[in-house]
Amino acid sequence: MDYDKLALDLHARHGGKITTALRDADTLDKTKLSAYYTPGVAAVSKAIADDPSKLPEYTWTNNLVAVVSDGSAVLGLGNIGPRGSMPVMEGKALLFKHFADIDSVPITLDVHTPDEIVATVKAISSSFGAINLEDIAAPQCFEIEDRLKEELSIPVFHDDQHGTAVVVLAGLINAAKLTGRTLNETRFVVVGAGAAGTAIIKLLNLYGVGSILAVDSKGIVSKSRSDLNDQKKMLLDYVDGSVDGNLADALNGADAFIGVSQPGLLSAELIAGMADDPIIFALANPTPEILPHEAKAAGAAVIATGRSDFPNQVNNAIAFPGIFRGALDNKVRTITDEHKIAAAETIAALVESPSADEIIPSVFDERLVPQIAARITP
Amino acid sequence: MDYDKLALDLHARHGGKITTALRDADTLDKTKLSAYYTPGVAAVSKAIADDPSKLPEYTWTNNLVAVVSDGSAVLGLGNIGPRGSMPVMEGKALLFKHFADIDSVPITLDVHTPDEIVATVKAISSSFGAINLEDIAAPQCFEIEDRLKEELSIPVFHDDQHGTAVVVLAGLINAAKLTGRTLNETRFVVVGAGAAGTAIIKLLNLYGVGSILAVDSKGIVSKSRSDLNDQKKMLLDYVDGSVDGNLADALNGADAFIGVSQPGLLSAELIAGMADDPIIFALANPTPEILPHEAKAAGAAVIATGRSDFPNQVNNAIAFPGIFRGALDNKVRTITDEHKIAAAETIAALVESPSADEIIPSVFDERLVPQIAARITP
Repeated sequence: MDYDKLALDLHARHGGKITTALRDADTLDKTKLSAYYTPGVAAVSKAIADDPSKLPEYTWTNNLVAVVSDGSAVLGLGNIGPRGSMPVMEGKALLFKHFADIDSVPITLDVHTPDEIVATVKAISSSFGAINLEDIAAPQCFEIEDRLKEELSIPVFHDDQHGTAVVVLAGLINAAKLTGRTLNETRFVVVGAGAAGTAIIKLLNLYGVGSILAVDSKGIVSKSRSDLNDQKKMLLDYVDGSVDGNLADALNGADAFIGVSQPGLLSAELIAGMADDPIIFALANPTPEILPHEAKAAGAAVIATGRSDFPNQVNNAIAFPGIFRGALDNKVRTITDEHKIAAAETIAALVESPSADEIIPSVFDERLVPQIAARITP
Repeated sequence: MDYDKLALDLHARHGGKITTALRDADTLDKTKLSAYYTPGVAAVSKAIADDPSKLPEYTWTNNLVAVVSDGSAVLGLGNIGPRGSMPVMEGKALLFKHFADIDSVPITLDVHTPDEIVATVKAISSSFGAINLEDIAAPQCFEIEDRLKEELSIPVFHDDQHGTAVVVLAGLINAAKLTGRTLNETRFVVVGAGAAGTAIIKLLNLYGVGSILAVDSKGIVSKSRSDLNDQKKMLLDYVDGSVDGNLADALNGADAFIGVSQPGLLSAELIAGMADDPIIFALANPTPEILPHEAKAAGAAVIATGRSDFPNQVNNAIAFPGIFRGALDNKVRTITDEHKIAAAETIAALVESPSADEIIPSVFDERLVPQIAARITP
């Protein structure tokens, strides 16, 4: 399938992917216009000015998520800027609508420092019911999310971090079950310490696992390294920082490889050094760290990738529609670590009998959104 | 009709007025999702990153207007802040969709200085095809619009100024015809020197009228006044600044009163001092400067108000849908004075035989949008 050509054709034919529509399907006669606009709307504005908590009751903000990006870390394309990122953000808005009937507006930002991004999102935040940060480069994404979570009274969720981490944890719960492991005795190696890798490490640590080693392009992230930036120093709170070495050293005897790094990084030889029946999550996209058939041949017991054409796709769309659906419906102001774990457990439980070909449910499983949403409560 | 109750009921029942929908009405199967999102969307993003002028070809920005307000001058309610203003801005989005099939997103700003508003709108401007500024207080609105027009490559239009001015000029063209006047010999008094008054004065001056006196709460805006702020000093370039006096002095012998001021300001006595068959535009909303039957009894030949329950409603929705429709469709980067005059003349021409009860077409006249849009060209 030539997705490039199909994508260009479909986007040009429809002139984009989303549109607006009116909630009231009846004919807008003069009377209705006088209620939805002047003079009637003044009473609604006054009610909200008097009590701002009524904003979601009377406006579309009750069901509205902004998908916000500065286009600095888009898909495999990197820093392509706000305009280049718009099709991806509009695509995310399409997924919100399609999977969870959530209204969503892509907001692409032509500013790039944390101060500017925080100021801009704060300035427009009263327009929305929640904020989905997307494709913002590490390490700025961490500071931006932390500050916005603290300063805004609506949910803020950087999906590249947490959506990925939730689906990875869901898959690992079932992969452990399948391979006869308990997670709190399982040894993990997470390769790639950007947005997704950091969030995966934090969530695994919180959930409780045997041990975690983080690996970046220079080797194992350890206390003895003198080249760590603040973000990677912070990681030492969550990993075993006493081990030095390269990727092969890290993988020696490890139970699970979680790659959010680069194509081809993992080899059959490296897998051979791992524990028996290793778990391989090769999530680099579109080309994974190792192809599933190669990983299987090298002894992997269960393999997940980011691709829809292989089994066990780690797809954020499994998690974020339900998480936001619940946050909006249940008036949750902050999406917490407990919500993420609840979402991961809910996703894992939807696979009744995990097998090597099914540790993660399909993104089309219609139980996902309602069941996850029910767990996102204040 | 109790519009307040109907408005509160309708807004609460539907949870706001607008929603999003998908442009492609077909089922979103796995193949389509792979084209609208990963992996296919990367080709579209890359095409735009390589040539940003392709943004409208591939994304919904081709049909998208942001309705932007800081809530500092909302309807008759004044400075009620961003949340209070949201129902009005969402209402404007509803009008955009209903009258011109334009997608529109309300953006309420929690910042209020010109520097902050300009910075915020610039930062998000790549998300939209045009910017409608709304209900931003004078005099800040002038600086904000001027700077954004200069700095952005998409149309920026402060509707409270220019939408009002266009419809007023359209009405005056027909009022002059009806009363046997030529506009370039007609003496105008414009009362109220805020956003709308200023724009009306500028557009009348440009169109060519006999004379204009501006009146504010302190009297005629003249060169001898020592209390004028920068904005009102600028007005002296457009009005006859040599005349001093109060409202009665200004109206003495005048042909036309254009009020964008406050309820009850105009009396039968004041009208009696005007020329024969005077033109009265009493646009204060919801209560005009004088009620139509009182103005008529005092000798007014033709009367317009801002209200839908009287004849000759000066309603911005007569102008802005067609102006933005044309700007988007014809890829106009700046909405110019010439566009405003063309729009006014088009609106006026839709009334084939002007009468005292019809100098302005109905907002429901379906010829408005296509005929105005056809005049908004590069």
